[in-house]
Amino acid sequence: MSSAIEPTGPDFSKNDGLVAAVAQDAATGDVLMVAWMNAEAYDETLRTGRAVYYSRSRGRLWRKGEESGHTQAVRAIYVDCDADTVLLKVEQIGTACHEGYRSCFFREVTPQGLKVIAPRLFDPEKIYKRG
Amino acid sequence: MSSAIEPTGPDFSKNDGLVAAVAQDAATGDVLMVAWMNAEAYDETLRTGRAVYYSRSRGRLWRKGEESGHTQAVRAIYVDCDADTVLLKVEQIGTACHEGYRSCFFREVTPQGLKVIAPRLFDPEKIYKRG
Repeated sequence: MSSAIEPTGPDFSKNDGLVAAVAQDAATGDVLMVAWMNAEAYDETLRTGRAVYYSRSRGRLWRKGEESGHTQAVRAIYVDCDADTVLLKVEQIGTACHEGYRSCFFREVTPQGLKVIAPRLFDPEKIYKRG
Repeated sequence: MSSAIEPTGPDFSKNDGLVAAVAQDAATGDVLMVAWMNAEAYDETLRTGRAVYYSRSRGRLWRKGEESGHTQAVRAIYVDCDADTVLLKVEQIGTACHEGYRSCFFREVTPQGLKVIAPRLFDPEKIYKRG
């Protein structure tokens, strides 16, 4: 563990340079999504006050809302005990989930399978460009 | 993606068989911790109603509170859009964090570095057996 990094922020020396990032609605307390940040994404988030993640599937920075306009204004950041996870309290513009739900956690586990427990607020086909 | 698994629960076919798990206090909405689950941990959590994680560092199931007594009674489970993260709403007995804080996110990022923003509720030395 790098004691030079630990006192000021997350520790990017583990997990291939990534930390997990939980975005929580600052107003309602709802957990909106979980994604990843590398040091560059974290630094840009701090500098701009807008949530920037690292997309593992695309292998590049993912400025939340860059396509949809559904940005997250970051109100506070917390670091966990192991310094490998951050919690962002955010003001969510639009919806966090690319499926059109306010939160990515729109399905509850029930004995009958997954049950959708939130309204769909937009049709993804109308927000994201295809092809 | 396995369409046979997806409709009923998380997808353990990615990320070396692990999904991220966020534990949120069912009463206050506070995010308590983030850990990992494999299929076995998830199944035992469902069956027993107590949070069971998979410890990557120890390479085995981690029955939350097995040493400290600080267990988590699971009230609801949600699965995210990609089915690779679960959100647990829990009733936390004692503290979630092994450092003695209610939540693992007890430090806020400030321009002056990390600032502890929660009271320490117990001394870990008195709870965990050493060596």
